[in-house]
Amino acid sequence: MYESYMQRALELAQLGWGRTNPNPLVGAVIVKNGRIIAEGYHKRLGGAHAEVAAFLNAKEDVAGGTLYVNMEPCSHYGRTPPCAKAIIDKDISEVVIAMTDPNPKVAGRGIKMLKEAGIKVVCGILEKEAKKLNEIFIKYITKKKPFVIMKTAMTLDGKIASVSGDSKWISGPSSREYVHTLRNRVAAIMVGINTVLVDNPSLTTRLDFGESRDPVRIVIDSKGIIPIESRVINVESKSAVILATTTALDNEKEKRLIDKGVQILKLDGPRGHVDLLKLMDELYKLEIDSLLLEGGGGLNAAALNMGIVDKVMTFIAPKIIGGKDAKTPVEGLGIESMEDAIKLHDISITRFEDDFLIEGYVKGALCLQE
Amino acid sequence: MYESYMQRALELAQLGWGRTNPNPLVGAVIVKNGRIIAEGYHKRLGGAHAEVAAFLNAKEDVAGGTLYVNMEPCSHYGRTPPCAKAIIDKDISEVVIAMTDPNPKVAGRGIKMLKEAGIKVVCGILEKEAKKLNEIFIKYITKKKPFVIMKTAMTLDGKIASVSGDSKWISGPSSREYVHTLRNRVAAIMVGINTVLVDNPSLTTRLDFGESRDPVRIVIDSKGIIPIESRVINVESKSAVILATTTALDNEKEKRLIDKGVQILKLDGPRGHVDLLKLMDELYKLEIDSLLLEGGGGLNAAALNMGIVDKVMTFIAPKIIGGKDAKTPVEGLGIESMEDAIKLHDISITRFEDDFLIEGYVKGALCLQE
Repeated sequence: MYESYMQRALELAQLGWGRTNPNPLVGAVIVKNGRIIAEGYHKRLGGAHAEVAAFLNAKEDVAGGTLYVNMEPCSHYGRTPPCAKAIIDKDISEVVIAMTDPNPKVAGRGIKMLKEAGIKVVCGILEKEAKKLNEIFIKYITKKKPFVIMKTAMTLDGKIASVSGDSKWISGPSSREYVHTLRNRVAAIMVGINTVLVDNPSLTTRLDFGESRDPVRIVIDSKGIIPIESRVINVESKSAVILATTTALDNEKEKRLIDKGVQILKLDGPRGHVDLLKLMDELYKLEIDSLLLEGGGGLNAAALNMGIVDKVMTFIAPKIIGGKDAKTPVEGLGIESMEDAIKLHDISITRFEDDFLIEGYVKGALCLQE
Repeated sequence: MYESYMQRALELAQLGWGRTNPNPLVGAVIVKNGRIIAEGYHKRLGGAHAEVAAFLNAKEDVAGGTLYVNMEPCSHYGRTPPCAKAIIDKDISEVVIAMTDPNPKVAGRGIKMLKEAGIKVVCGILEKEAKKLNEIFIKYITKKKPFVIMKTAMTLDGKIASVSGDSKWISGPSSREYVHTLRNRVAAIMVGINTVLVDNPSLTTRLDFGESRDPVRIVIDSKGIIPIESRVINVESKSAVILATTTALDNEKEKRLIDKGVQILKLDGPRGHVDLLKLMDELYKLEIDSLLLEGGGGLNAAALNMGIVDKVMTFIAPKIIGGKDAKTPVEGLGIESMEDAIKLHDISITRFEDDFLIEGYVKGALCLQE
């Protein structure tokens, strides 16, 4: 029984995808006399936490009920008052939790508060599933850096574009639609300047169904050569555009970009490159908890080398394009020995019509493993 | 009921894998009074056909029984007398068949013989499965060319070797074991001279369990530069080595190779290359019905360009190695427009521990589509 109600809490939590960042996804279910009497979830940043949302939705007295929630109730005054206190005030008799709050400000204090108030607390129900659901939050809150997903789409012979640069389209409509649901979930999307110059993408979210929300759009442009007329800068969107560049950006260009509403981050790194590690720190400060990296082979290689990538999502289309000089998903200098290859773990696969999506985690990068 | 007995016939047929070439895989089941009274399969080229094997294995009189066989019984005197005649002589009352024999020498004549003898004939039971099982035979007998499987193993970023040429190992132990079961099934294996120079493979079959049989080993070597001491030439094996070369091979070298037991095929093609189309004709004449192409990017590109590839099998390991200059599965000049990409169909996927095997057929190449 614990598992099925917790499963429902996890389902509810997912309704907040892309709207709660950098807060976690949390759902709550209240059960009394063997039936659900209230449900709630954290809808958006600054909105009611899941537990409080469930209390507000309750059609009858919740006193004496069992609360199922996928993350430990908070114990601190943040954007809202502590949920643990509300639970005690409502006279809930049992609280079932999937995972403790990785937030160092909570970290067991919520559970302690409940127990001290005489409430029975059960922990660890569907813990693995709950951790996977909140992998972004776990990384963000414990490492103080965004969770980075490197997403690529390649042919069955490992190409992300033809020799002439054509990449429309490697993957099929279902895969591309799914990428837009990803953009709708993450806080930010990041590409390199070459992608802007070659493909001139808007980097917005286009969903066939439901409300779209654009991620913050980040362009890595060491030399500051982005054309002012680029689509990413000019397309109508409520979301910010950040140009991650270096002091190589000239003042006149900087002024024009700022006039266009572009945020400029000058982060000089080695050999004239943007310092990606510093960028991750800056993004954390901007409360960007997650980043979809849709880079070319150069940027992807740099991101992997700097150790900022947590998860890899590779769409594979059953097509062959060939070409010794065609671009591949990860370029750079490359690793020499197969033994030193970056090995992914917790591999899974999903089929989208004829395409396959292989997902895996970079070793040491995933909080699930800690 | 038809389906379950036919399923059993298909299972029996598979016991002949790699031993019947260039004959098809055929299994037979005889059912009488609701139970199986005999089973048989085509064990090896020149051995009894499945129907006759079943008759030989029968513990009671088969007269009046129903025979299930996955391919139409033959009607001609080939290496053995016609099975249709044997079926009639044995007084079988019903014959259930999965597919007609694509061999133009049979092509319905077997069924006609049976019907004319007053035997009830049912056709098309598990036909799709039967055609897939005998895809090699169908190609070979109708197109008079071997069925070519292009097999590659790449990382999740599309590399078949690191920048320094290291490819040991891209895929894991389970994938590699499966490749040896493939070598045990096909009539021949083919690589390019670069693979011989870089990896010096023996191209033999090494199975952990069961009897291994090496495929005929073919090396494409336009300039005739294969080292006499190469492992493929010197390793102990009952199977032949064929060097597909051109008139560029010098006489002294040719003599030494022949002394080593190497068969030489001189097939001059455009621009000093080996003519792959002529090679396919020669292999047909040698009764090689199937070819596992384990080429590098250059040979794979050439084979695809010449339209000789029927099936693509790509192992994908969840590893990232990077490298702008690392080798990819298909190189050559490449196709410029994504719209012209070679699209595979009838895609399937199999997991081998952490690796995935994606299989598909090249358009126009698969007899299943006809």
